[in-house]
Amino acid sequence: MPETIYGVIMAGGSGTRFWPMSRGETPKQLLRLLSDETLLEGTLRRVAPLIPLERMLVVAARAHGPRIRELLPGLPADNLLLEPTGRNTAPCIGLAALEARRRDPEAVLAVLPADHFVDDEAEFCSTVAAAARVARNGHLVTVGIRPVRPETGYGYLRLGDILGEESARLVDAFVEKPDLATAVEYLAAGRYLWNSGMFFFSARQILAELQQHLPDLHAALLRIDEAWPGPQREEVLAREYAALQPISIDYGVMEKARGIAALVGRFGWSDVGTWAALREVLPRAAHDTVTVGRVVELDGRGNVLVAERGVVAALGLTNTVVVRAGEAVLVCPRQRAQEVRQVVDALRTLGWDDVL
Amino acid sequence: MPETIYGVIMAGGSGTRFWPMSRGETPKQLLRLLSDETLLEGTLRRVAPLIPLERMLVVAARAHGPRIRELLPGLPADNLLLEPTGRNTAPCIGLAALEARRRDPEAVLAVLPADHFVDDEAEFCSTVAAAARVARNGHLVTVGIRPVRPETGYGYLRLGDILGEESARLVDAFVEKPDLATAVEYLAAGRYLWNSGMFFFSARQILAELQQHLPDLHAALLRIDEAWPGPQREEVLAREYAALQPISIDYGVMEKARGIAALVGRFGWSDVGTWAALREVLPRAAHDTVTVGRVVELDGRGNVLVAERGVVAALGLTNTVVVRAGEAVLVCPRQRAQEVRQVVDALRTLGWDDVL
Repeated sequence: MPETIYGVIMAGGSGTRFWPMSRGETPKQLLRLLSDETLLEGTLRRVAPLIPLERMLVVAARAHGPRIRELLPGLPADNLLLEPTGRNTAPCIGLAALEARRRDPEAVLAVLPADHFVDDEAEFCSTVAAAARVARNGHLVTVGIRPVRPETGYGYLRLGDILGEESARLVDAFVEKPDLATAVEYLAAGRYLWNSGMFFFSARQILAELQQHLPDLHAALLRIDEAWPGPQREEVLAREYAALQPISIDYGVMEKARGIAALVGRFGWSDVGTWAALREVLPRAAHDTVTVGRVVELDGRGNVLVAERGVVAALGLTNTVVVRAGEAVLVCPRQRAQEVRQVVDALRTLGWDDVL
Repeated sequence: MPETIYGVIMAGGSGTRFWPMSRGETPKQLLRLLSDETLLEGTLRRVAPLIPLERMLVVAARAHGPRIRELLPGLPADNLLLEPTGRNTAPCIGLAALEARRRDPEAVLAVLPADHFVDDEAEFCSTVAAAARVARNGHLVTVGIRPVRPETGYGYLRLGDILGEESARLVDAFVEKPDLATAVEYLAAGRYLWNSGMFFFSARQILAELQQHLPDLHAALLRIDEAWPGPQREEVLAREYAALQPISIDYGVMEKARGIAALVGRFGWSDVGTWAALREVLPRAAHDTVTVGRVVELDGRGNVLVAERGVVAALGLTNTVVVRAGEAVLVCPRQRAQEVRQVVDALRTLGWDDVL
């Protein structure tokens, strides 16, 4: 019964790894990084054949509410759940599970990050549908992606026994980001998948898991639930969130729960984690370089060159990221793109908030 | 008699090596590259103790006339000689020599590029005064700079016999830009000086040299001179310039004339030929980097980082030039800064004239 599937779009990020394009008011999921649509819009559009906007719950930071309403005019007002402060994914998923359970006690959640890349949308939808079926049968389900390179930027799932449903396997273990040698082993071994951060479970079950593994969070969620339709709702939400410990669903539940199932996603996927990742998801021009906007590259190779405005000219550069956005320019070697947060911290220390 | 010294400021460059800061309307000599004053203003101010504005002749491209008048309100209108098209330094100097000779048949010219760096202004003025004295005695005079590093970006003078005036030496030869091994030899040998591009000679003598070595140019200059005060002046100037071959004073006269004297300039000097040269003339911050404007550098070394507007953030960069100016960004390795012209050519081909 697909009408019990609720989409839960985790759009709470305030990420700085795409500075200077992602600034305070425009986190990554609200950027038009890969095309003319924002990553958030793409996430909803991709799964629309399975889940209409009426059953789509978007969880985001309060500050981004107006911008998201503008981007998603068809989303019912009650389907946008705004968090007063970010507390990582476990509270976000708990909040959405409560909302879905209120609407349908049998609700099955398809929890999807708002800011990822997928390149085969039909295959993606078919995987989501299969994962939801396995979840409806009482499993916590995740989707793993078959590695295509020894990636050190992702966590991995180690596959165990065959589950006997929808080609699903049990997850033997969740594995942290490996070093390069280990990533090469994982790639060769064949039983390791990239952890995509997508999760599928019934609202009832994830709330039970939260009660078991994160009882304080669960109690807070129940207090929020009691106040929900009433006039105290915002006040209770603010108070409870202020007291919550930030914790991810991976660490708080998935790594502790038993009998987790994994489906293999057979579509191209990236979490688009840094500027350097654009090379994995955008077509590469000559010399292995990716360009966005008005860019001139002379005698270069392997660069990521982005001109949100104006022109970027690169002469004799290799494996370098150059981004011009707003009034700022970022330049760094590609392999250091994950350290951009340090630049943002330095700018904050300097008080140059006009470019943050 | 210092009152016979006329300054000739060669401000005709339309250089592209400081793109994106130098664009069509703002060539290098009109940039505030080193301080709050333009290089042109600095050139006039530096020599003002010797040569007042009344005896200063500025030769520039017609297109830059309004901007130069604005920058130099004290310059008499007739002292700004505007060329209809750039024809390199020999025509420029010939034009100024005519003007100076009309005012004073005994005029001695101090020909100075408008866009160089000098760091000891008292020593500089003393050298100019000495060079003018030697020129008044009938020599073509140039100033060479004692090398402080094996520079491959400059031409050199090889010193010959002692002249017996003002510590001057005869110039044995003008030498083209050397390769690094040769530049190291020059540095060790002690008789090679950097060719600073400053020249000193009487108006009478340089016109005689032009007549001997560049008779066509000399004839054209005489036709211009005849028309000069009259109503045909601009028309004749345009016609003659259109037909002139571009040629430098170095190649057209200095390398062919005999008995050229050189004085040693004992001041810090740079022709500030590329973005990379800023490291030679501006104070270096931590890690051997030079910064202009709002710049954040993390874990970098030996960079040239320029933010005309906004912010430039460099993470993990070494020996790299990053310039944000106007709506454009340039990034290149420091040792390729002299190739920026290629970027400008590419932009022109693309038709992106808004950043040129």
